[in-house]
Amino acid sequence: MIRVVIIGGGNVANHLIQAFLHSKTVQLLQVYARNTEQVALFSHQISIINNLTFLEEADVYIIAVSDNAISDVSSKIHTSGLVVHTSGSASMASLKNKGRKGIFYMLQSFSKNKKVNFDEIPFCLEAENSEDVKLLEQLSLAIGKKVYHINSEQRRCLHVAAVFVNNFTNHLYAIGNDICDQHHVPFEILHPLIKETALKIQELSPKEAQTGPAKRRDTETIKNHLDLLTTKQQEIYKLLTDSIIHGEKL
Amino acid sequence: MIRVVIIGGGNVANHLIQAFLHSKTVQLLQVYARNTEQVALFSHQISIINNLTFLEEADVYIIAVSDNAISDVSSKIHTSGLVVHTSGSASMASLKNKGRKGIFYMLQSFSKNKKVNFDEIPFCLEAENSEDVKLLEQLSLAIGKKVYHINSEQRRCLHVAAVFVNNFTNHLYAIGNDICDQHHVPFEILHPLIKETALKIQELSPKEAQTGPAKRRDTETIKNHLDLLTTKQQEIYKLLTDSIIHGEKL
Repeated sequence: MIRVVIIGGGNVANHLIQAFLHSKTVQLLQVYARNTEQVALFSHQISIINNLTFLEEADVYIIAVSDNAISDVSSKIHTSGLVVHTSGSASMASLKNKGRKGIFYMLQSFSKNKKVNFDEIPFCLEAENSEDVKLLEQLSLAIGKKVYHINSEQRRCLHVAAVFVNNFTNHLYAIGNDICDQHHVPFEILHPLIKETALKIQELSPKEAQTGPAKRRDTETIKNHLDLLTTKQQEIYKLLTDSIIHGEKL
Repeated sequence: MIRVVIIGGGNVANHLIQAFLHSKTVQLLQVYARNTEQVALFSHQISIINNLTFLEEADVYIIAVSDNAISDVSSKIHTSGLVVHTSGSASMASLKNKGRKGIFYMLQSFSKNKKVNFDEIPFCLEAENSEDVKLLEQLSLAIGKKVYHINSEQRRCLHVAAVFVNNFTNHLYAIGNDICDQHHVPFEILHPLIKETALKIQELSPKEAQTGPAKRRDTETIKNHLDLLTTKQQEIYKLLTDSIIHGEKL
């Protein structure tokens, strides 16, 4: 059994708690949350603390807090166990505990009300020595299937790429939703297209999959589209259209 | 049986031919393509012509050509049948045939090498009278399942919204791919996130689903990300981040 403590009460922490509670090879010892209400859902199943001085000895401490709190929180963990954070962008050096350090980055977007399939999530692992990498591998395989050894530079790159394909993409969905609302069309009509667009690049490269007026240099349609948009929407439309037309090399 | 002629040799035409050939309630009479090689795949199954004067009499003529060719092509169709185009942005008035007119807009992205599931495609229909709308409904249901009555203004709005959620989204995937290539990380690691992002908004609204550094106002991470990007990528990153931060109302 790998003994685990989770530090944090946000979405990542909540989904991890749920996953570890269903695992047979992980013993979830404690959860620390500054505000214990954030993890109140699990109060009957695990020990929840809001004071780091009460931390028990564990094999792995998973810090799932906001990036700028990692240093402060980790500096208060005194253990011979492995301390890892779950951030895509924070460095290994942001961990301020005295002992073993590592990264346990799950490349997925966690929302509060949306169930997560851990089998699909890539676990991007890093540690200072191969034994700790192996420990993190075992921990990943206790709840998931896809494990990658990713160094810090690669992880930072993945994180910024993830912002484009996830956060920014979702924002384009929000703009599409706004346009539909403005013209009294149900956004649901666009759901199949959104799904198809995402599934298509599981088979084709995004460059092969590109279609649309910008790709076709269809200036007439582009002009008509701009007429239908708000100033802010126009700005985004123009920049992305220009990037598709001219930016073969980005 | 609904007798159909398809005008065009591009992706939409090719996928429609394939679908109609499998339908029991549609008789595909002819396909017109300026360059018959574009539909050569079907030359043993249907009559292919490259001269509009040889058009046979049909119930519906589906014009699936580029927007700026619709007027020219339709002006050469002399028929008492219904003439429709498949464009999301061209108006009904762009049809220059003398008789019945309509729109047969499938809100989906058609790529040459990617199979299409017509059951998922929303058919957005419009015609000048209810009988012709009914005919287009029957035609849609011969190959698909989802039928919507959409007027021209709504269709133009859907088309521009589709550019955001499909063409622009795919371009963000391309940027993500470029970033991965630049840092020697396999783009495949991002596939599950891309899929999850698209599937999530089938249940949550895009605004509820929004996550990431911009949403969290995490200026430290944003600064670190910008350092990793090319000038062009930075421009897009900044504009979309700004839009997420300030653009609650787009």
